[in-house]
Amino acid sequence: MKKNILAEIITVGDELLYGQVIDTNSAWMGEELGKIGIRIKQITSISDQREAICEALSAAIERADVVLMTGGLGPTKDDLTKHTLAEYFKTELQLHQPSLDDVEAIFKRYNRPMLEVNRQQAFLPATCTPIRNVLGTAPGMLFQEQDTLICSMPGVPFEMKRMMTDTVLPLLQSHFQLPKIVHKVVQTIGIGESFLAEAIADWENNLPPNLKLAYLPHLAGVRLRLTGVPTAEENLEPLMQAQIEQLSLLIQPYIFAYGEVTLEEAIGQLLKKQNLTIATAESCTGGLVAHKLTSVPGSSAYFMGSVVAYSNDVKTAQLGVKSETLAQHGAVSEETVKQMAEGVRTLLKTDIGVATSGIAGPDGGTPEKPVGTIWIAYSDAHQTLARKINYNKTRLLNIEYTTLQVLNLIRQSLPPTVDQ
Amino acid sequence: MKKNILAEIITVGDELLYGQVIDTNSAWMGEELGKIGIRIKQITSISDQREAICEALSAAIERADVVLMTGGLGPTKDDLTKHTLAEYFKTELQLHQPSLDDVEAIFKRYNRPMLEVNRQQAFLPATCTPIRNVLGTAPGMLFQEQDTLICSMPGVPFEMKRMMTDTVLPLLQSHFQLPKIVHKVVQTIGIGESFLAEAIADWENNLPPNLKLAYLPHLAGVRLRLTGVPTAEENLEPLMQAQIEQLSLLIQPYIFAYGEVTLEEAIGQLLKKQNLTIATAESCTGGLVAHKLTSVPGSSAYFMGSVVAYSNDVKTAQLGVKSETLAQHGAVSEETVKQMAEGVRTLLKTDIGVATSGIAGPDGGTPEKPVGTIWIAYSDAHQTLARKINYNKTRLLNIEYTTLQVLNLIRQSLPPTVDQ
Repeated sequence: MKKNILAEIITVGDELLYGQVIDTNSAWMGEELGKIGIRIKQITSISDQREAICEALSAAIERADVVLMTGGLGPTKDDLTKHTLAEYFKTELQLHQPSLDDVEAIFKRYNRPMLEVNRQQAFLPATCTPIRNVLGTAPGMLFQEQDTLICSMPGVPFEMKRMMTDTVLPLLQSHFQLPKIVHKVVQTIGIGESFLAEAIADWENNLPPNLKLAYLPHLAGVRLRLTGVPTAEENLEPLMQAQIEQLSLLIQPYIFAYGEVTLEEAIGQLLKKQNLTIATAESCTGGLVAHKLTSVPGSSAYFMGSVVAYSNDVKTAQLGVKSETLAQHGAVSEETVKQMAEGVRTLLKTDIGVATSGIAGPDGGTPEKPVGTIWIAYSDAHQTLARKINYNKTRLLNIEYTTLQVLNLIRQSLPPTVDQ
Repeated sequence: MKKNILAEIITVGDELLYGQVIDTNSAWMGEELGKIGIRIKQITSISDQREAICEALSAAIERADVVLMTGGLGPTKDDLTKHTLAEYFKTELQLHQPSLDDVEAIFKRYNRPMLEVNRQQAFLPATCTPIRNVLGTAPGMLFQEQDTLICSMPGVPFEMKRMMTDTVLPLLQSHFQLPKIVHKVVQTIGIGESFLAEAIADWENNLPPNLKLAYLPHLAGVRLRLTGVPTAEENLEPLMQAQIEQLSLLIQPYIFAYGEVTLEEAIGQLLKKQNLTIATAESCTGGLVAHKLTSVPGSSAYFMGSVVAYSNDVKTAQLGVKSETLAQHGAVSEETVKQMAEGVRTLLKTDIGVATSGIAGPDGGTPEKPVGTIWIAYSDAHQTLARKINYNKTRLLNIEYTTLQVLNLIRQSLPPTVDQ
């Protein structure tokens, strides 16, 4: 049994080279392969050209145990991957009846006439093992050369992902007899990577040798991923669960979820569980907090609405912010943002109101309140509180960062649930 | 003078291979190189490892006239690109005083103590030409081997982009004596690629041989890019301008801008020019229309605010939608969405109101109104009109597509300006 399985990814398509399409497939495949313990050596993007495909493929086969290719399997003339692979592996195209049945079924479902070019998609290299595509008309293909597996998949992201999940990843796990690696994810927000590392250093240093921790930072927090490799003696699941519980005690205030959950999903679950409703009053975030909350399916159960109050008139007339407050403290102030949060809660009759007011830039800053000066507030029946943020990157990053901070403020300020 | 200049891109960093970071640098560089007439042969992503860097670099130098590298220039131990390049080009690191001055200035500006690792960033391979980094602490490096130029830049996108724009692209143009290619962009929305191609087929077929058209489709429209290569006889600028004018006549209703302008920026310019104000009333888009409009700097001049009315209570109490209308036609109906647009215009005292109401999914559909049934409306002092959309991809795509359609409805419904 070989220890370190190496993979390479080859993405085919002129659109990738000329920047019309950003290659997101490789990152997704890299992460999924990493999860089953396969290391990526190289990612190569090349043109839809016979020589380019052959050259990249032959170099990758030399270096890697697995080569995953995407792209170039469409029905049009510029899609050359399938013909090139047949030539490379010295074989002929032949009709693969189950693939033809699948293609015909797709056209029947959409009630569209099937053209000869679509029928051609069911012709596959004779020596390949076809991989079923349940979401599109281009089947995948699996080849083997010496000890290397080569797998060609469509470039359409959702077709490729389904094929990987259903067929390719399980196949790689069994072919290479990979250990059944287990991952546990802890989602944090509000603490930087280096502070987090310091807070959990002792715990991390004392991890058993078969458990490893990865720090995956993003705009306002860090995803922690604990990866366990099974050993003969131990049952991995309880071992990892115990470690996660120890970790949780160290950084409890920063954890918003376990597993692959977004912050807005986590908040939605908390609000649903406590049967609470929410509304937002947004100035500088311009509706992005509302958009995030409503991007969660079923959010209409707790999200009632929002007032985006860009002008001071809307702040006073709709949200009831006092003119004296605006005159004395300005729109970007603790006093104003608190009145906005209270105002929207009253106006839309919700349990919770949150608010934002700040200078997102690039213009509008003053010496006392430079660009990046932002106030956020939370209000419920028991309390109204505000927090100041200083953050000045680009206008869009300032807005996105503030939105994450508001979501985090909701999470931190909600009354505790009974079962926590 | 060599005719076809070929480039390769090498991006360095484990985070790219394991999917923690999506490589957006390559797509941007590919597009910029394409604009000055340099073709991309291959994009390669590799690990922060000496052997991987040397192997990829030597293969790229064999194939290409230009090799652009990004990443691995940070101050930490896992950043190996600079040391590896010094070794590869058989030279030593030496202090580059102007770079040290730049690094020191950055630390002074942020009032932070400078560490020895930061000082080390000003040590560069003796045979390279340093490239100034005005936004960060890692200078770029230019090497030449035989006839190939090799350029190493930081992986931080905004630092790399500034370095490319200020230094690398002009340098490549002069080094390779590239023809001064001219691009003109026409932005369209509301017409699919194949219909657009049919509408302008005669015009496209009659283009002079030194002008080429590219179709760059996106979620709700197509960017058209006309590229001109200068000839000895003709002045490119008036020739291309005349062609763009002919093209415009054929597809006038779909054009929202010339050049690299977003739809929300184009609408902002129209509103400013006509001195009009706007407000949005959003149900299914949940605030995304307001977010798009306010993502434009200076939008507070015309955007007053928004009511996100997720619950029917908010639709009636705030926007004045009649209870009978909701009872008789439902929230997702022409009648409701028109009352929402009129209601927000009255409430927030703006010239224009727009509204959305629909079923974004995945739940909430019925046989009569399946997921993807969406109504949008526009209202000003002269007219109120509504349009029905049927679009059913994922929840997020449904929301994004609807948002673009609302923006397009604003553009189409605004009173014509005097000078058009």
